[in-house]
Amino acid sequence: MSPIAVFDRPLTSVDLTIFSVARETLQVLLVRRSGAPEEPFPEVWALPGGFVDLRQDADLEHCALRKLREKTGVVAPDLEKVGSWGSAVRDPRGWSVTTVYLALIAAGGTALAAGGNAADARWWPIEGSRVRERLAFDHGEILKAAIARLRNKVEYTSLPAFLLTPEFTLTELQQMYEVVLGRTLEKKAFRTRMLATDLLEEVPRMKEGRSRPAQLYRLANRRRPVFFARTFSPRD
Amino acid sequence: MSPIAVFDRPLTSVDLTIFSVARETLQVLLVRRSGAPEEPFPEVWALPGGFVDLRQDADLEHCALRKLREKTGVVAPDLEKVGSWGSAVRDPRGWSVTTVYLALIAAGGTALAAGGNAADARWWPIEGSRVRERLAFDHGEILKAAIARLRNKVEYTSLPAFLLTPEFTLTELQQMYEVVLGRTLEKKAFRTRMLATDLLEEVPRMKEGRSRPAQLYRLANRRRPVFFARTFSPRD
Repeated sequence: MSPIAVFDRPLTSVDLTIFSVARETLQVLLVRRSGAPEEPFPEVWALPGGFVDLRQDADLEHCALRKLREKTGVVAPDLEKVGSWGSAVRDPRGWSVTTVYLALIAAGGTALAAGGNAADARWWPIEGSRVRERLAFDHGEILKAAIARLRNKVEYTSLPAFLLTPEFTLTELQQMYEVVLGRTLEKKAFRTRMLATDLLEEVPRMKEGRSRPAQLYRLANRRRPVFFARTFSPRD
Repeated sequence: MSPIAVFDRPLTSVDLTIFSVARETLQVLLVRRSGAPEEPFPEVWALPGGFVDLRQDADLEHCALRKLREKTGVVAPDLEKVGSWGSAVRDPRGWSVTTVYLALIAAGGTALAAGGNAADARWWPIEGSRVRERLAFDHGEILKAAIARLRNKVEYTSLPAFLLTPEFTLTELQQMYEVVLGRTLEKKAFRTRMLATDLLEEVPRMKEGRSRPAQLYRLANRRRPVFFARTFSPRD
């Protein structure tokens, strides 16, 4: 018997903030909660997630991947921890703690499934939809923190390049960074920085189209996002 | 009554990674666990922390500040979330989740108190002591992640300057960054970058000593650490 009485244990859940880019906007994956009147926030949109199952889940990340798969059909490759939120008031059912994970995935080809408590699952654009202000529980605040973490992280990794086709121009790459970061970047500095890394390889082909032909590139390593060096030194 | 049975709830705790600098080394605050044989890891060093008290704690951060104060006497101003660790095996008492916080504080004048489960509390140097490999539970892994987070964070904030006396030279400031980051920095780039921010104000005084007189600076804002701009642009 544990020295800690079971009535002293909070409700424990995981929630997921899954981002992607579609139609040139950053999107987040949300589920609509069931309409059952005994459930809190019936029919309100929420982050996908749910309670830890102590028999089924070996750890929190296992639980997060299971909930994501069951509620949305999405299989995320790598999850990053965003943090946890826990208080006496965040869930009307009692003291609760949720651990939040983040992933940025390619949207194309991802089948969204409905099931479990989630009557519905869909991608919502971050900007303009005001969906963040109408989420269940404290999920609006959690989503805000996750967006900040994503943008902070992305600035130093090759992650956005994984959302592109295997061969892309520097203009297409810059546009993808701009969509994820939510702001415009200075073209010359972006190119200088990108080409200074070992991130990209030139492909012996040009992209032809309405504008003048542009050099095509591909990721030198498509298996895992690469972190850029962070240093105090100005780049030469 | 909650739809989630109480036996389905994990043990829920908080742990703290509190860092400081003393004798020119980065140190972490640890407590020695009680020697009671019914407790796991008797007399082993561990991060300060403990179980959430659902009646006493309004939220996780409140719980963390309370545990820190009770077990070590330390009052930390701002805590940052590092993440949570939860699994079936990390605590021999059962499925458990811990939420981890981080702070970097000035060590001088901080009285360490013994109390509660912690028979003893002291600062341990990060480098050389190999203490990380001998910590209770998964605290070695947690400490490793917290050090990485601290170093990542510090690189972009004025936080290390808060560990210095109110007036300092650029050499003293660089040394403090080097101790916290665990590596040497290039002098000219460090100075260029520091003076390019609005972080520092010149004091109308020089530091006199055995070496030649050096300009003294102070923080323009001593209330909160300032984040440096992060941009794609190379710094001029």
